[in-house]
Amino acid sequence: MSQIKIGMVGGGAIARAHVLAYSSVPILHDLQVKPVLSNLAEANVDLAIQAASKLGFENHTADWRTLTSSSDIDLVDIVAPTYLHAEVAIDAAEHGKAILCEKPIATTAADAKKMYEAASRAGVVNGVGFNYRRLSAILLAKKLITEGALGKITQFRTNFLEDWASNPKMAFTWRYKKITAGGGALADLGSHIIDVSRFLMGEIKSVCGMQETFIENRKLPNDRSKSEQVDVDDYTTALVRFANGVPGTIETSWATVGRKVALQIEVNGSEGSVYYNFENPNDLHYYSGADPNDRQGHRTIIMGTAHPYGTSFTFPATGSGAGFQDSINNEIYEVVNAVMKRSSLAPSFYDGWKVNQVIEAIQESSSKKKWVDLE
Amino acid sequence: MSQIKIGMVGGGAIARAHVLAYSSVPILHDLQVKPVLSNLAEANVDLAIQAASKLGFENHTADWRTLTSSSDIDLVDIVAPTYLHAEVAIDAAEHGKAILCEKPIATTAADAKKMYEAASRAGVVNGVGFNYRRLSAILLAKKLITEGALGKITQFRTNFLEDWASNPKMAFTWRYKKITAGGGALADLGSHIIDVSRFLMGEIKSVCGMQETFIENRKLPNDRSKSEQVDVDDYTTALVRFANGVPGTIETSWATVGRKVALQIEVNGSEGSVYYNFENPNDLHYYSGADPNDRQGHRTIIMGTAHPYGTSFTFPATGSGAGFQDSINNEIYEVVNAVMKRSSLAPSFYDGWKVNQVIEAIQESSSKKKWVDLE
Amino acid sequence: MSQIKIGMVGGGAIARAHVLAYSSVPILHDLQVKPVLSNLAEANVDLAIQAASKLGFENHTADWRTLTSSSDIDLVDIVAPTYLHAEVAIDAAEHGKAILCEKPIATTAADAKKMYEAASRAGVVNGVGFNYRRLSAILLAKKLITEGALGKITQFRTNFLEDWASNPKMAFTWRYKKITAGGGALADLGSHIIDVSRFLMGEIKSVCGMQETFIENRKLPNDRSKSEQVDVDDYTTALVRFANGVPGTIETSWATVGRKVALQIEVNGSEGSVYYNFENPNDLHYYSGADPNDRQGHRTIIMGTAHPYGTSFTFPATGSGAGFQDSINNEIYEVVNAVMKRSSLAPSFYDGWKVNQVIEAIQESSSKKKWVDLE
Amino acid sequence: MSQIKIGMVGGGAIARAHVLAYSSVPILHDLQVKPVLSNLAEANVDLAIQAASKLGFENHTADWRTLTSSSDIDLVDIVAPTYLHAEVAIDAAEHGKAILCEKPIATTAADAKKMYEAASRAGVVNGVGFNYRRLSAILLAKKLITEGALGKITQFRTNFLEDWASNPKMAFTWRYKKITAGGGALADLGSHIIDVSRFLMGEIKSVCGMQETFIENRKLPNDRSKSEQVDVDDYTTALVRFANGVPGTIETSWATVGRKVALQIEVNGSEGSVYYNFENPNDLHYYSGADPNDRQGHRTIIMGTAHPYGTSFTFPATGSGAGFQDSINNEIYEVVNAVMKRSSLAPSFYDGWKVNQVIEAIQESSSKKKWVDLE
Repeated sequence: MSQIKIGMVGGGAIARAHVLAYSSVPILHDLQVKPVLSNLAEANVDLAIQAASKLGFENHTADWRTLTSSSDIDLVDIVAPTYLHAEVAIDAAEHGKAILCEKPIATTAADAKKMYEAASRAGVVNGVGFNYRRLSAILLAKKLITEGALGKITQFRTNFLEDWASNPKMAFTWRYKKITAGGGALADLGSHIIDVSRFLMGEIKSVCGMQETFIENRKLPNDRSKSEQVDVDDYTTALVRFANGVPGTIETSWATVGRKVALQIEVNGSEGSVYYNFENPNDLHYYSGADPNDRQGHRTIIMGTAHPYGTSFTFPATGSGAGFQDSINNEIYEVVNAVMKRSSLAPSFYDGWKVNQVIEAIQESSSKKKWVDLE
Repeated sequence: MSQIKIGMVGGGAIARAHVLAYSSVPILHDLQVKPVLSNLAEANVDLAIQAASKLGFENHTADWRTLTSSSDIDLVDIVAPTYLHAEVAIDAAEHGKAILCEKPIATTAADAKKMYEAASRAGVVNGVGFNYRRLSAILLAKKLITEGALGKITQFRTNFLEDWASNPKMAFTWRYKKITAGGGALADLGSHIIDVSRFLMGEIKSVCGMQETFIENRKLPNDRSKSEQVDVDDYTTALVRFANGVPGTIETSWATVGRKVALQIEVNGSEGSVYYNFENPNDLHYYSGADPNDRQGHRTIIMGTAHPYGTSFTFPATGSGAGFQDSINNEIYEVVNAVMKRSSLAPSFYDGWKVNQVIEAIQESSSKKKWVDLE
Repeated sequence: MSQIKIGMVGGGAIARAHVLAYSSVPILHDLQVKPVLSNLAEANVDLAIQAASKLGFENHTADWRTLTSSSDIDLVDIVAPTYLHAEVAIDAAEHGKAILCEKPIATTAADAKKMYEAASRAGVVNGVGFNYRRLSAILLAKKLITEGALGKITQFRTNFLEDWASNPKMAFTWRYKKITAGGGALADLGSHIIDVSRFLMGEIKSVCGMQETFIENRKLPNDRSKSEQVDVDDYTTALVRFANGVPGTIETSWATVGRKVALQIEVNGSEGSVYYNFENPNDLHYYSGADPNDRQGHRTIIMGTAHPYGTSFTFPATGSGAGFQDSINNEIYEVVNAVMKRSSLAPSFYDGWKVNQVIEAIQESSSKKKWVDLE
Repeated sequence: MSQIKIGMVGGGAIARAHVLAYSSVPILHDLQVKPVLSNLAEANVDLAIQAASKLGFENHTADWRTLTSSSDIDLVDIVAPTYLHAEVAIDAAEHGKAILCEKPIATTAADAKKMYEAASRAGVVNGVGFNYRRLSAILLAKKLITEGALGKITQFRTNFLEDWASNPKMAFTWRYKKITAGGGALADLGSHIIDVSRFLMGEIKSVCGMQETFIENRKLPNDRSKSEQVDVDDYTTALVRFANGVPGTIETSWATVGRKVALQIEVNGSEGSVYYNFENPNDLHYYSGADPNDRQGHRTIIMGTAHPYGTSFTFPATGSGAGFQDSINNEIYEVVNAVMKRSSLAPSFYDGWKVNQVIEAIQESSSKKKWVDLE
């Protein structure tokens, strides 16, 4: 069996999830290829040794260019902080590597565009870690929309609410600066729901946003006597108009006390509706106006073998899958499959670029207090 | 026992709910006064006879001025279409009557202001039928916010979604024209959640709205070969900024397939959160960040005798009350009590006027595609 | 319009609910008859004056025989403690009165049988206050079962859990003695779900129960230095076998901390299922195995105008009704209608007797630790 | 780093879940040992080659004795049909191997006892695949009970409902015969909830069960013209009395249409309650009677880093874990850890034996229609 050699840039929580997936997908799917954990780059030698050892990589390096330039790497998996994505990804593309990059793919739309162009020029497989659109329930929602089960779509609403940043004692990190993160909750969580919005509804045409920073200074992790200013949003909400004319809203916050991982979506149409909340990740709620008059109601459809990716849940029984790791497993399966077949991936760097454009439009609209059209 | 003589203008579904409440509140509360159903006005004699007979009024009239000018009426209860409110209410005020008026109180903020001024000038008790703020759960939410149980409020979100107007076969009525209704879903349902928003959060300072009409023509009820253009919103969503600085959103639609009476509210603060959905009207969901770390979660608090109005549920046991009629019973109790004691009521015509101002600001902002500040 | 003159025996919380219903049903329904609150009997003159005044009765009495023997009473509504039911009801029947009796109708099956026989002999309209089977959702469940939407019924489960008696400081009342109440939670709450079980599933053939008393002594209300022994169940659970062969369980407790009015029912069949919890009284959950394979799920059907009694909700809009008082309104409507038309009622004293038989069989089975067959 | 060599007997769905866990636990935990997939036995050579290749085992065999007797195997993981467990496990014990055995551990309590005795005699590490007690939510429930947060326990209820066997077209397998499976739904699903019951509440003292077979014949998989009789339960319900005196019920069915993996538990005490449903595996519902009077309610606690195993979720963020595979990961971690440290495991073969005793007592009680005491 042939191999795909993985070079990973970064060694944090998402690195771990990806590694678990690389070892799982050959078991969960019929794959004629084996992912090999070849090399891991981290910020310095100590971190690199530690992460490579923990995650099971054969080699380690403190210089990611070793990876991107190595003839021994097939796929560069970028799970580093956002500000590093563009440089690594462009170099990897120029060396002809397939690339999987975490979201958002860049801190600016301009950088994202460069990444997209570099990958296109090089003709390399390129994908983005928007894992939520890999969930069975989201794919079933997409199917219902596409089939027309909801009729003509009239309204759209999405939120992504978490609460870890509501703690004012949480230390400053690169996530709290625009230059390193590209934004706050909007870039981190909002990028996911912008991706899901585009996936389900198509392009966004114009936006009108409002952003807020609840906690304006955070202590430095290594010296709690000092603090650094936060210049990104804790909370963003925006009106949006899709290219197909449908109105909607997008809201995100990483400081909504009580909401842990509430990625919520509701799509309403003239004949039916769906809604979803990732806090119960296995359930899609579907209302059909075609049901008999006295027995209409939102159905709680529990994801299982009848649904997309249902037979490749870690345990293939209805109700036993579709959590966070399953979405990552599905993502990594698609990536490995595309690398093997040299086929195109969605979401790609193009999608990553489009998401960055929406982020910037919402930021601009918020600071100027006006509607902003996307090109 | 003294009496309060009721003159009702209108004989529809809300009239019925009010009548049920007038007969219930002396039993549910210790009241030293008895509401008497004295006179009912409808659009013509036939309708007036029919409604007065059905609802149990002593007299009927086809001319509401008979009511407002009668020395035998203490309280004028206006449950007629919106375009009639101002004229009836101002006349009633000028005759020194106490007034309860359905929502929104007028089709324009200018008219609403005139009603407010007339009532103030006359010094009469005046109230508005914003019944949802009479719900036990909303009053508990208010209490939690006021006590500081949520900490500093950071975000606010409300929706009011129904689906009866999603049916394109539903005939044209006065509700589908701005001149008679003051707006569509925003005036009808949105007025309720604007009232609840002001009740929980204080004044709204600026808004940016987006409106949509899904069904642009509706058949005439009496001649289905003809149709009339709808010039109001089926759907409205708006960013709002409260005077206290808190950001939020307000959304409403009467054409969201599957949502029956989904008045939803979520208030997030630095220490806790509450959310509510009227589709399960007895339940308030409350998250306290003060709970021990490993046992934090949204609590489903079922309304009962420990809660506001809990001892005056129709059946005073936890879980047995707090539906639509209970909110009306609570409203009518407060109105009767205020009339008896000549005390002021909240929500009053002042609140009704403020709600109309917000409605108009959202309408203006939507048509001009820009933020609009309220005076 | 003709009148039905009501004589009520008892003046507590259920009396209040019935009175509200008597005044509401002529408004909620097309009824060619007006219930008149004629006379109320209580345990002594003071209580009788107070209750009659509060509830709006024309007359009062400290001797219920005044009611049952009066030529001026059409319907005797017995809302007194259980131990009084039989004597009052039999006397009322012998005087040719229509009778509505609270549940359980007697403290023993033998007394219940006497009541049934007396009513049959006299040919009077007789009904029992099993109000939960008057709920829209339960009637929809019945309809789905009868239509075959669930296929062949395979399993049945019901619980009725409340928690007010979990408080050990709650004082002793007649409810805590078998001689006055006929049982504890099983007689009080269990009687309701036995009725609903029979309504949905038919007769119960055999039972095997287990009962428990959690709090064995309670202070006297008037002298907290003394306490009285409780000789009834706080908790009962039972295996049951229906005459149609279906197995199931019945469980009830009035001391289940956190459960307020959790009357729960689940009926499973070869083609579908329904479940219900009165804590969200408007919702019936229905699963149809006939739905397409990838979109099966329990539907939350919100009760409304498409459902039984939906047009006579206090406010006739989906999601606005079906609470406790609505079930009482429906019950009183059926009673008034039957009295007017001299038609038979269900549930009748026959049903009340059958429920008492099941209660006794569960009690016997529990004390003897063995299965008991019903005759 | 040292190694633990795994010999697996069986290659089905649970084998796959275990394999995924063996590769994940060194990454999710700090383990000074590496599990090695050494040898896999299946029923014949073809199946063995296929499963070993798919799951990544170094060797394969058609004779499980090769495994149990090999000096190269440390841990025998038995994921074969129930009727094979005893022989394999006893042989493995006699060869001094650590053993992990699927549930129920045997088709009879007598065999289970022999397994327990063999493992005790040999002094080998022994564990059972009761994975649900490895769930974070169940462990939090256990903690709350042990800490006294619920007060004195008064009632217990558990169900485990699935629906795959409700399809009459599902072919006959070894699961439908008592001699090969030890029972039907009761052995397959019921064994899990009996284990959880014992884990949370202690030993069961007496039972009174009722069993039912809904589909009495099933087609042979290889010759659909023939069918075989089913002699096990599709549905079992039982009253139970724990040794500590608490009453409760246990119910299970694999043919409850609409229920996919509804492992439900409710524990009620004098001061609080918990309930759980595996269909939303991340959520424990907890009611505290110690909360202020007007803000008591069931809290939905979402499992996360504050909870047992929370830092070893595949993705260590609240709301992102605690599905089926996480429970398996936790189980395999405990097994590997025990093998490495030669420490005892719970649940062990002792627990497996006790569960088989309860199963047999329920079966006996059901067939004799009487209560049965456990020794």
